[in-house]
Amino acid sequence: MDDIEIEAVAEADLSNPVFVEGLPGVGNVGKLAVEHLLEEFEDATLVRRIYADVFPPQVGLEDGVAELTHAEIHAVETPGEGPDLLLLTGDHQAQSNEGHYHLTDAFLDVAEEFGAERLFALGGVPTGELVDEPSVLGAVTDESQLDELEDVGVEFRDGEPAGGIVGVSGLLLGLGGRRGFEAACLMGETSGYLVDPHSAQVVIEVLQDLLEFSVDFEALEDRAEEMKEVAAKIQEMQQQQQGLPSDDDLRYIG
Amino acid sequence: MDDIEIEAVAEADLSNPVFVEGLPGVGNVGKLAVEHLLEEFEDATLVRRIYADVFPPQVGLEDGVAELTHAEIHAVETPGEGPDLLLLTGDHQAQSNEGHYHLTDAFLDVAEEFGAERLFALGGVPTGELVDEPSVLGAVTDESQLDELEDVGVEFRDGEPAGGIVGVSGLLLGLGGRRGFEAACLMGETSGYLVDPHSAQVVIEVLQDLLEFSVDFEALEDRAEEMKEVAAKIQEMQQQQQGLPSDDDLRYIG
Amino acid sequence: MDDIEIEAVAEADLSNPVFVEGLPGVGNVGKLAVEHLLEEFEDATLVRRIYADVFPPQVGLEDGVAELTHAEIHAVETPGEGPDLLLLTGDHQAQSNEGHYHLTDAFLDVAEEFGAERLFALGGVPTGELVDEPSVLGAVTDESQLDELEDVGVEFRDGEPAGGIVGVSGLLLGLGGRRGFEAACLMGETSGYLVDPHSAQVVIEVLQDLLEFSVDFEALEDRAEEMKEVAAKIQEMQQQQQGLPSDDDLRYIG
Amino acid sequence: MDDIEIEAVAEADLSNPVFVEGLPGVGNVGKLAVEHLLEEFEDATLVRRIYADVFPPQVGLEDGVAELTHAEIHAVETPGEGPDLLLLTGDHQAQSNEGHYHLTDAFLDVAEEFGAERLFALGGVPTGELVDEPSVLGAVTDESQLDELEDVGVEFRDGEPAGGIVGVSGLLLGLGGRRGFEAACLMGETSGYLVDPHSAQVVIEVLQDLLEFSVDFEALEDRAEEMKEVAAKIQEMQQQQQGLPSDDDLRYIG
Repeated sequence: MDDIEIEAVAEADLSNPVFVEGLPGVGNVGKLAVEHLLEEFEDATLVRRIYADVFPPQVGLEDGVAELTHAEIHAVETPGEGPDLLLLTGDHQAQSNEGHYHLTDAFLDVAEEFGAERLFALGGVPTGELVDEPSVLGAVTDESQLDELEDVGVEFRDGEPAGGIVGVSGLLLGLGGRRGFEAACLMGETSGYLVDPHSAQVVIEVLQDLLEFSVDFEALEDRAEEMKEVAAKIQEMQQQQQGLPSDDDLRYIG
Repeated sequence: MDDIEIEAVAEADLSNPVFVEGLPGVGNVGKLAVEHLLEEFEDATLVRRIYADVFPPQVGLEDGVAELTHAEIHAVETPGEGPDLLLLTGDHQAQSNEGHYHLTDAFLDVAEEFGAERLFALGGVPTGELVDEPSVLGAVTDESQLDELEDVGVEFRDGEPAGGIVGVSGLLLGLGGRRGFEAACLMGETSGYLVDPHSAQVVIEVLQDLLEFSVDFEALEDRAEEMKEVAAKIQEMQQQQQGLPSDDDLRYIG
Repeated sequence: MDDIEIEAVAEADLSNPVFVEGLPGVGNVGKLAVEHLLEEFEDATLVRRIYADVFPPQVGLEDGVAELTHAEIHAVETPGEGPDLLLLTGDHQAQSNEGHYHLTDAFLDVAEEFGAERLFALGGVPTGELVDEPSVLGAVTDESQLDELEDVGVEFRDGEPAGGIVGVSGLLLGLGGRRGFEAACLMGETSGYLVDPHSAQVVIEVLQDLLEFSVDFEALEDRAEEMKEVAAKIQEMQQQQQGLPSDDDLRYIG
Repeated sequence: MDDIEIEAVAEADLSNPVFVEGLPGVGNVGKLAVEHLLEEFEDATLVRRIYADVFPPQVGLEDGVAELTHAEIHAVETPGEGPDLLLLTGDHQAQSNEGHYHLTDAFLDVAEEFGAERLFALGGVPTGELVDEPSVLGAVTDESQLDELEDVGVEFRDGEPAGGIVGVSGLLLGLGGRRGFEAACLMGETSGYLVDPHSAQVVIEVLQDLLEFSVDFEALEDRAEEMKEVAAKIQEMQQQQQGLPSDDDLRYIG
């Protein structure tokens, strides 16, 4: 196998699609959001699989059948007025510093191949506490994008997220911007302790307004309701123990 | 030295052999199983040594003579009706993420060179407690293999092993499947605390049924008996201490 | 993206410039020094950006606009008699052993391209305690440089810094010397616990004497005054606690 | 710089020299031994420097002059009947798994270039306790070497050192053997807690017998005497504290 292999599974005739990334990260917000879009757009077509030796040396199992760790890109011809979509998701980030760079470049190659000029990287930004009404923070490759995003409620706050944006989401802006893409990162506020379907929903709502599509949220709302109960139990435990749960106990429960 | 070097030690004229891997892992089940096969098939021929800079920078010693860390592939012309075998074993897994990928690809190159189309990766699946009658869990590259394996007692359980299969065993399925091999992983249940010859035996028994060969188990049974005594002593100690032994104390005793 | 990419942002017609490096390090002395020079030489021109996959996979944000992690080289045509300058700074060191080597080689390529033959690597040397009047320690590629540096107050002490000089500063001498550059490292004494603008000032003062330029220090003096107050508070706390602050508490406060 | 660079400093006309390695390791036995030989053979000529990006990114300092981390190979025309020598030493081992392999291959290239067919890797083997009369353990690439080494007192013990031999010393046998060199490792017993000049002396004594040269040991004996005093103080402290010194306290004192 080459270090990175882009497998062409199917082709799709998209006109100027928008590329949307949702890999694992804080609160799994980005991954939950893109997976929800894939469930709701039932005619999504798997067009590319990306294999890489910087993914963990691992197979996942489904009904006993093994599948090599990879990222997937689906094509969606949206029904409304808005642009078509290319949806990127997967189970893993790269496992090395350099790997993040090379993998992101491969993702951008696919975006380019399908004619995408605009990218959205979805993710979460940790607040350290449970958030009832999460805001969506933004970052862009060019200040000309700021107005349009602020119009749909995206907030740009000085020095947030502290330390910038790491991983594929950050590099889609960093490398994408250098390659001429107009890229933005949409980050839902989230505690950082729990998988956060509600934060994923508010991120999608912003994307809906921007790209003029519309999806149902029942499935995400159900999962958010479950997580709310988990969170309530944890807060109860915290009050009983008069101590904060450690990251190890709570991170990614759900 | 090249990053990976396949040294041709001897040739063998095998007809459509089955490739069987047993590198170190949980309970050393896979390695014990393949080493037992090598002892029982006395006419096994060492055909390939695989050296790699992703193995530890280390030599092993035997009677004062040093040998560079490597993996070995032996050819076995089985006496019965069943297919011939290529048996892969060694003392180490790769030491890096990318190394697992490249090493597995090299193993598959050898399998291909000898005309193997079918692979078995042998290993253990940790249960966290001592197991009297270990089951053999399976994973395959294609669902068409499920029936044949279930017929000889291999179990396929939803979500097990949790987290999929890592290392060379996982990648033999992941990369092997992509290269057109029909590959399966056979994992004996094992505590995860002790080297487990009994689990190795049940894995071989499944393989015997599938590949129509037959070996003696006396040596493995003797080692299993010894391990049973070790386990009994540990359980006694546990009861006295009213505490569980730590992983560090017990892992790979034997 | 290539592993390392040197982006030509602008050109500058410098005559035999001196290359000065100030990347993050002990007390951030080198970075503070070069950043101060960039503020004072208002006509500094950004000439090169260096991107590398050994930098963290990260974007920084300014007013919501993302910028891929990189190092920057500015050209300064100094007003006085002294040589022109090439000033290197950035937010990160390389993240891997090999990365330090390859990145330094890229920096030297730029120095060579602009005709620089002389390099200064600025940094700090940790003393473990607060220093009122920091000395500047030196290291050079060739003993012929010793006299000139000692004449402007640079000290050369046997066995200091213990363990030599690591990172890009060390390699600018190590690799630079081998490529024929006349390179020196100027290291201001600093506690190692705090960002140290005063140490940065004494390092610049040495450079001023060597390279016959002159800058104002008001901004650095103000920052040093602030840090002095921070240090005073810490010493007060130490006396109350009768214990030394741990490195984790104090390193890089400011 | 290339990943590994062999710099030709001088040439030497040696006839069938023996290559002897002494890089840092357990008790620094190998490095002390080779450095002692370099001091005693006053006409040793530095013939090669080996630079590598797998060495630490670091310069050492001597009288203020920086020198890039490297390994050195000196040529010695021995006065007696015995063969000439190529002596390898340096301040560092490789910093990565793969690095050990590539660096050792570079060392073997130099050995080959100078016509060496026989190699000795010098080192220490940890015993965990202070040793008054250290034995020298051996390992070889070919059993034909055993008799000659046993004749001069080298011991070959089953399963020692446990886990084989790691690092450059191990690979000089592992890779060297594969490239046709006749290589042996000579390991002086040493506590593993302290730098051990006495163990270095007994290793050299074996080498003297094998290669028919003769050096003075006064310098090593003086250093060994100093270490004996350090060891005595430590044992006194141990008895007072009724506890064993931790590895962190004692390793490489001296």
